Amino acid sequence: MAKEKRTAITPTRAQDYPEWYQQVIKAAELAENSPVRGCMVIKPWGYSLWENMQGVLDKMFKDTGHTNAYFPLFIPVSYLEKEVEHVEGFAKECAVVTHSRLELNKEGKLVPSSPLEEPLIVRPTSETIIGEMYSRWVQSYRDLPLLINQWANVVRWEMRTRLFLRTAEFLWQEGHTAHATKEEAESETMKMLRVYEDFAQNYMAMPVICGKKTESEKFPGAVDTYCIEAMMQDKKALQAGTSHFLGQNFAKASQIKYLSENGVQEYAWTTSWGVSTRLIGGLIMTHSDDDGLMLPPRLAPLHVVILPILHKEEERKSVMEYCQRLKADISSQKYCEAPVRVEIDSRDLRGGDKMWNWVKKGVPLRIEVGPRDIASDSLFVATRHDSSKAPISRAEFLDTLPQRLQAIQDAMFAKAKAYRDASTVSINSKEDFYRFFEGESGGGFALAHYDGSEKVEDMLRNDLKVTVRCIPFDGDKTPGTCIFTGNPSAQRVVFAKSY
Amino acid sequence: MAKEKRTAITPTRAQDYPEWYQQVIKAAELAENSPVRGCMVIKPWGYSLWENMQGVLDKMFKDTGHTNAYFPLFIPVSYLEKEVEHVEGFAKECAVVTHSRLELNKEGKLVPSSPLEEPLIVRPTSETIIGEMYSRWVQSYRDLPLLINQWANVVRWEMRTRLFLRTAEFLWQEGHTAHATKEEAESETMKMLRVYEDFAQNYMAMPVICGKKTESEKFPGAVDTYCIEAMMQDKKALQAGTSHFLGQNFAKASQIKYLSENGVQEYAWTTSWGVSTRLIGGLIMTHSDDDGLMLPPRLAPLHVVILPILHKEEERKSVMEYCQRLKADISSQKYCEAPVRVEIDSRDLRGGDKMWNWVKKGVPLRIEVGPRDIASDSLFVATRHDSSKAPISRAEFLDTLPQRLQAIQDAMFAKAKAYRDASTVSINSKEDFYRFFEGESGGGFALAHYDGSEKVEDMLRNDLKVTVRCIPFDGDKTPGTCIFTGNPSAQRVVFAKSY
Repeated sequence: MAKEKRTAITPTRAQDYPEWYQQVIKAAELAENSPVRGCMVIKPWGYSLWENMQGVLDKMFKDTGHTNAYFPLFIPVSYLEKEVEHVEGFAKECAVVTHSRLELNKEGKLVPSSPLEEPLIVRPTSETIIGEMYSRWVQSYRDLPLLINQWANVVRWEMRTRLFLRTAEFLWQEGHTAHATKEEAESETMKMLRVYEDFAQNYMAMPVICGKKTESEKFPGAVDTYCIEAMMQDKKALQAGTSHFLGQNFAKASQIKYLSENGVQEYAWTTSWGVSTRLIGGLIMTHSDDDGLMLPPRLAPLHVVILPILHKEEERKSVMEYCQRLKADISSQKYCEAPVRVEIDSRDLRGGDKMWNWVKKGVPLRIEVGPRDIASDSLFVATRHDSSKAPISRAEFLDTLPQRLQAIQDAMFAKAKAYRDASTVSINSKEDFYRFFEGESGGGFALAHYDGSEKVEDMLRNDLKVTVRCIPFDGDKTPGTCIFTGNPSAQRVVFAKSY
Repeated sequence: MAKEKRTAITPTRAQDYPEWYQQVIKAAELAENSPVRGCMVIKPWGYSLWENMQGVLDKMFKDTGHTNAYFPLFIPVSYLEKEVEHVEGFAKECAVVTHSRLELNKEGKLVPSSPLEEPLIVRPTSETIIGEMYSRWVQSYRDLPLLINQWANVVRWEMRTRLFLRTAEFLWQEGHTAHATKEEAESETMKMLRVYEDFAQNYMAMPVICGKKTESEKFPGAVDTYCIEAMMQDKKALQAGTSHFLGQNFAKASQIKYLSENGVQEYAWTTSWGVSTRLIGGLIMTHSDDDGLMLPPRLAPLHVVILPILHKEEERKSVMEYCQRLKADISSQKYCEAPVRVEIDSRDLRGGDKMWNWVKKGVPLRIEVGPRDIASDSLFVATRHDSSKAPISRAEFLDTLPQRLQAIQDAMFAKAKAYRDASTVSINSKEDFYRFFEGESGGGFALAHYDGSEKVEDMLRNDLKVTVRCIPFDGDKTPGTCIFTGNPSAQRVVFAKSY
């Protein structure tokens, strides 16, 4: 047996994937559990990543005509009740505010006092409260469309939590739009799904499949839910973003009505769509390796870190000056229309510790600068993505930096796509299907014909913990026969285990 | 009696100042009350303003070495209890979460179920939960300083609420830093106060007085609270931002300890500082007039709005083309290192309605473009700030646009400062003091000698609803005699009624 390579993260992916995930987050200082059950603390490195994601998404939303607004954190219980599927979907796991004061009891303990007339829940999503406001704002067809997004925190009292993937409180954006026609609302739903696809693939370097959810997997209260699904390195699917066509369900629940051009009172057609800090979990599990996090350049808080090699005190001044000039030259380069993000790490740490610190944090490029490099005016450049290390002349490095970053971005996407494609198979019998998910290969995405019945979905959920991830838009649309029932099937759908 | 001028806002400031304030907000579509008690909805125009404020402040925080992070929404009641003044300050008005589920009772009504073991409160501020995290992160002097800011929503269950000024939920930023020495923490406290002063004066065009709070007005748990105080047009003071030196109070409460360079366990020294959406209230009341909102160019969501005059259908095409070219030329100009923000309003509305819409929204410059203007290649430019209207050649307008915007910014500050200074008086006797605040002038800022006693503060609060706004840093520092007690006074302090 070959000697095992030492890795910066223990355990490795192969040894214990869920624990590896936690350790990558810890080593990169992205987030940690707080003392408040299920609530995480997003640490500065993780939050910078979220800020970069927000920046790109926010621009995409604005470029597609949306503006931001802010709605209340609390939702009266009676609002939740307005839509029957919605209340069933969210009442079971929510934070309920019942009092507006604490006071000392006789034992000197602080206890709730001043009970509220009607309990409030902390928003798990804002369709109902935003619907109420829209019903006030929309009177005539001239008030439509309403195209609003909100960046906010939401709370779902999940029993089993996991950093970024499933936490009681998380950060997200929720777009809520109202339209005069069904066609326009459907087109909005699809447009925003494609914005998410663009973001996932071209910024996160995370390949996704766009498609529609089955009835049993859709959002509580939606007519149709569309999603982007990504494959993680344990071959499970991650639902990374959703866009809902709500029909007139919420418009009827909230009385969002308008006077049409023809003078008729009509209900509006609404949509909602969202992505959350869960995306950070997806990014981690798509790209990281046994040495830790790996960040795509387009979202990395830092593109380049300069590590001065300071062995002798008398060299310190000249090395630091060289590094400062290098930093200025690098940040005068542009990548994606903004200055390249670069820092010097001059902390008083052992060189190895310092280097590994940045490996685990996933910075795309590291440059070591010592007296010998300065003498030859060359840089020793380490690339996180492929673990390559090579000397390169300073001038050439600066000339090619934006292309180098884009090449890393592209290579990360290509690698992730190749991984996903290698674990995606067309399956043509129930036996092969069960073997695929029960076997040692660990499953992946199975493309199979399916008749659309909930009975099959229940069976697969119980037997294999496998669900229909989506009915994909792209790819093979040939009709066939359901491999589970023999009934007709309109097209193959994507099955997988999932987060 | 002179005929009253018709105004876009009814009532006027002179008729009913508090109602005028509500109507300005309504007319500008900045925000409105939601059906959730005390919680407001920040509408797109108001939120864009907040985004611009956030953008500037966030850059200032980062330029002074801070990074952002995110901490839990909920705080266990036991954490609040750790600091005795703190719990007294916040326990009386807080949202208490007691259950994690809703279920249908026998009457078919949704009621709270699954009680929590320990109730949680929705954060009114985050010193205690952040203190807990810092106690885990700080081990050695090498871990200090910790310089973190959080953008978040907070909840204080205020009984009397008022849009932006006092709402149950509001948006803010809270900086929390930990340092190895008292001096460093004090210097941080002061540095961030000066950041707020810079922001208020140079971006909001709102003059402020920097100073220290008295014991009775300081933050619950702080050693010293510093503030910026602004004067509104009703001559009341608005506390617009605070920066707290917390000493070792919260470090002791949360056990934030570090091993010093000398190998000794020491408590850290901490600070916190914050501004909130209350600033929007301050901006409104500093600048708006009886025609509505007035926005300083540095924060305005739009700098210029182009209003095409479309009387005849056959002119539409040429007018719109001219407007499009004009928009492109304007947005190619830069103001404060970013493109000038400009939109064309081509909505199908009466010209007068459309014009007044933008007056009430406070856009600094409006340009009307009709066939005659196009023929002469000149623009009819209306300036919101001084209600001036004048034709100007297109070329000259474009050449001078950035200077024109900065001139408006400067003029707004100068006007606000002149107003404040005219209502700020030095007062040398108790009689004059009472006359000043009880008289028809409506008060203002009174600079008077005061011995620092809480007894005087209580008397003035009861008699006049007047408080010490701050012990100012700048200006006259000559010692004197307290006008209320005859005791020695170190310097004059600022008294006012306040929000």
